[in-house]
Amino acid sequence: MKEMKVQASSHSYPIYVGENLRFQVGRLLKEEYSSIMVVSDETVGELYLEDILASINHSHLYYTLVPAGEESKNIDQFYQLHSKAMEFGLDRRSLIIALGGGVIGDLAGFVAATYMRGIDYIQVPTTILAHDSSVGGKVAVNHHMGKNMIGNFYPPKAVIYDVQTLESLSGKEVRSGYAELVKEAFIGDEKFLEELFSIKLGDLSSTQLTEHLYNGIKVKAAIVEADEKEAGIRKYLNLGHTLGHALEAENGYGKIAHGEAVAVGMLFALFISEQVYGRSLPYQQLLEWLHTNGYPLQVGETSPEALIERMKSDKKNIGNNIQMILLRGTGDLTTEEVPEQELKEYLKTFIGKLV
Amino acid sequence: MKEMKVQASSHSYPIYVGENLRFQVGRLLKEEYSSIMVVSDETVGELYLEDILASINHSHLYYTLVPAGEESKNIDQFYQLHSKAMEFGLDRRSLIIALGGGVIGDLAGFVAATYMRGIDYIQVPTTILAHDSSVGGKVAVNHHMGKNMIGNFYPPKAVIYDVQTLESLSGKEVRSGYAELVKEAFIGDEKFLEELFSIKLGDLSSTQLTEHLYNGIKVKAAIVEADEKEAGIRKYLNLGHTLGHALEAENGYGKIAHGEAVAVGMLFALFISEQVYGRSLPYQQLLEWLHTNGYPLQVGETSPEALIERMKSDKKNIGNNIQMILLRGTGDLTTEEVPEQELKEYLKTFIGKLV
Ligand SMILES: NC(=O)c1ccc[n+]([C@@H]2O[C@H](COP(=O)([O-])OP(=O)(O)OC[C@H]3O[C@@H](n4cnc5c(N)ncnc54)[C@H](O)[C@@H]3O)[C@@H](O)[C@H]2O)c1
Ligand SMILES: NC(=O)c1ccc[n+]([C@@H]2O[C@H](COP(=O)([O-])OP(=O)(O)OC[C@H]3O[C@@H](n4cnc5c(N)ncnc54)[C@H](O)[C@@H]3O)[C@@H](O)[C@H]2O)c1
Ligand SMILES: [Zn+2]
Ligand SMILES: [Zn+2]
Repeated sequence: MKEMKVQASSHSYPIYVGENLRFQVGRLLKEEYSSIMVVSDETVGELYLEDILASINHSHLYYTLVPAGEESKNIDQFYQLHSKAMEFGLDRRSLIIALGGGVIGDLAGFVAATYMRGIDYIQVPTTILAHDSSVGGKVAVNHHMGKNMIGNFYPPKAVIYDVQTLESLSGKEVRSGYAELVKEAFIGDEKFLEELFSIKLGDLSSTQLTEHLYNGIKVKAAIVEADEKEAGIRKYLNLGHTLGHALEAENGYGKIAHGEAVAVGMLFALFISEQVYGRSLPYQQLLEWLHTNGYPLQVGETSPEALIERMKSDKKNIGNNIQMILLRGTGDLTTEEVPEQELKEYLKTFIGKLV
Repeated sequence: MKEMKVQASSHSYPIYVGENLRFQVGRLLKEEYSSIMVVSDETVGELYLEDILASINHSHLYYTLVPAGEESKNIDQFYQLHSKAMEFGLDRRSLIIALGGGVIGDLAGFVAATYMRGIDYIQVPTTILAHDSSVGGKVAVNHHMGKNMIGNFYPPKAVIYDVQTLESLSGKEVRSGYAELVKEAFIGDEKFLEELFSIKLGDLSSTQLTEHLYNGIKVKAAIVEADEKEAGIRKYLNLGHTLGHALEAENGYGKIAHGEAVAVGMLFALFISEQVYGRSLPYQQLLEWLHTNGYPLQVGETSPEALIERMKSDKKNIGNNIQMILLRGTGDLTTEEVPEQELKEYLKTFIGKLV
């Protein structure tokens, strides 16, 4: 097991990454709680809920499941989870445990952030992608007009990451998660990037997984410690997300995995960066790696125009300009306001090269 | 104009209390915002929206109104205000102005707290009661199973209080607001309490109103500075609210004014306190003052049993015991867990004495 501490503005919290941790959740809780509610989705619940429940010895232990998938990250589920919490009698000294991927982490985390104006919660991520969502305290639900539009900054009390749970992930989910690891490597760690480019998804050992997740989280944690509320450098974590989110929205959330969309977005960011800064960046290397590992390198049934419209409603934007996260090199990120017309041209060329 | 600063954990913010301030809202804004959305209710909007809008010189200035009353403090209005904010193109640098009573402050404040994970908002309270709700950063909507169950601690960037707007309040709303002032006097300020007991609602000058609001806010501000998240003494601000909330819930929210319910709750707290601590407290004095000023001194169509059930789901409770805020004297508050059976007896006697 590897361990790390993250310093949030309100408190510091531990992150544990390793094997068999789902059997130790109870033991790793640092405080006494009056009651505990585990929130999971039906798929993950089927697989790991029993292990978690068995690890906790508490007379007021409850659970509730929501349907698997991005559609559950909405205001109705949010409200219903509040109902559940009240039915179970959760009070201000209660704990919520989010057992699942980013959807559950964001949803249950937002419920915890707002239940009686905020109670404790811990993240038990079960996807690779959730190494990103479980650290840093961003919690939210989607609004029909925009993803993650309703939420809080509300850090968990702990992150307990059992890498064994990742063995049941589909290839698609593995790809999705590794895209965010590649993103973090681009942001912070040249050696980590080399390591990632050298592996093939599909035959990874537990030790490798632990190592990769730990490295990714280290980058993420350093950034959120420096800029919790995304006033500055935390924006860099959105590398690939401007186009990524637009792709998700255009294709319908959940149709294309978040990280797969981000992968295409990242490639696009490298594509623009090479031209804007006149430098050679590992565009080709990333393209090949994505290709080898089976990432869907396409934008789906949409148009550059529709994608640009989506990108205009990105949360990073101030006023009407589209802010892109670009890079001059590994670890050297920038934000640029790219004029709409120019961006459309880049996008057309980029899409043309993909197919 | 009187001015005061409140130190929240995230930032400090000014409170302005005085005449004509609704014409100076624009001038009092300390930052540049990309756009501004004023949220109000239909009653208040009719009366003061124009004045506020005219005071702000901004090319992206929007407003939206919700129906007047407690029923608007729900998850649907919350979601719809998010829709409005998106339609108007609000971004992270935008501002929300809550123009109205506690309902608007709580609702619009919670929208600000969660829009893109939190944007700035300022409170422009227009009820006396809102001197309490506008300071301290508690924002929320109601859940059908409990009042204020979904919310955040999220302090405003400023509170701009125009006492002239209070002239259009009904007698009921004046009573409601003054009950909370009496509460603050009980918590913190013997002289203030004497002053309040000496006045008659209905013929108050602007100067008196300003003075009373300022004194009440001073007590409230001191407490939230000491205990923002209600881990300790902030609980005392709930004096009268355990029974008060139960009365509101039993009668139907909005049927009985919040402060009128709190007034009865406060009287009950004094009643119990006299017996539990064997001291003489100004129970009789409060009763007479409430009577003279036309407070409805009754519990409505409900039973002690039903009220006790409601009190059991109070947010202050930990586990199954009912926590009551009591006092040994002015400025000397306590919390006691009163056993259910005992509480029921007190309540029966108390109700018997009321009618
Ligand atoms: N809060 C943040 O900082 C942040 C960062 C990145 C992404 N996100 C959010 O995370 C979400 C995406 O996360 P995700 O990809 O983990 O989605 P997810 O939670 O929907 O999980 C993907 C799918 O995998 C299944 N699954 C989860 N764990 C499994 C396991 N161990 N074995 C088998 N199946 C399993 C789920 O049931 C689901 O069907 C998005 O909503 C995104 O906005 C948030
Ligand atoms: N956040 C907190 O700390 C806190 C503290 C106390 C109360 N509250 C909340 O505040 C709410 C009650 O506040 P309220 O009593 O101000 O309710 P409110 O906002 O509903 O106002 C009461 C009525 O007066 C009308 N009104 C408002 N200003 C007026 C004016 N100047 N002239 C004429 N009519 C006017 C409104 O339209 C409404 O019909 C409750 O929901 C309660 O939970 C919150
Ligand atoms: Zn992402
Ligand atoms: Zn109150």
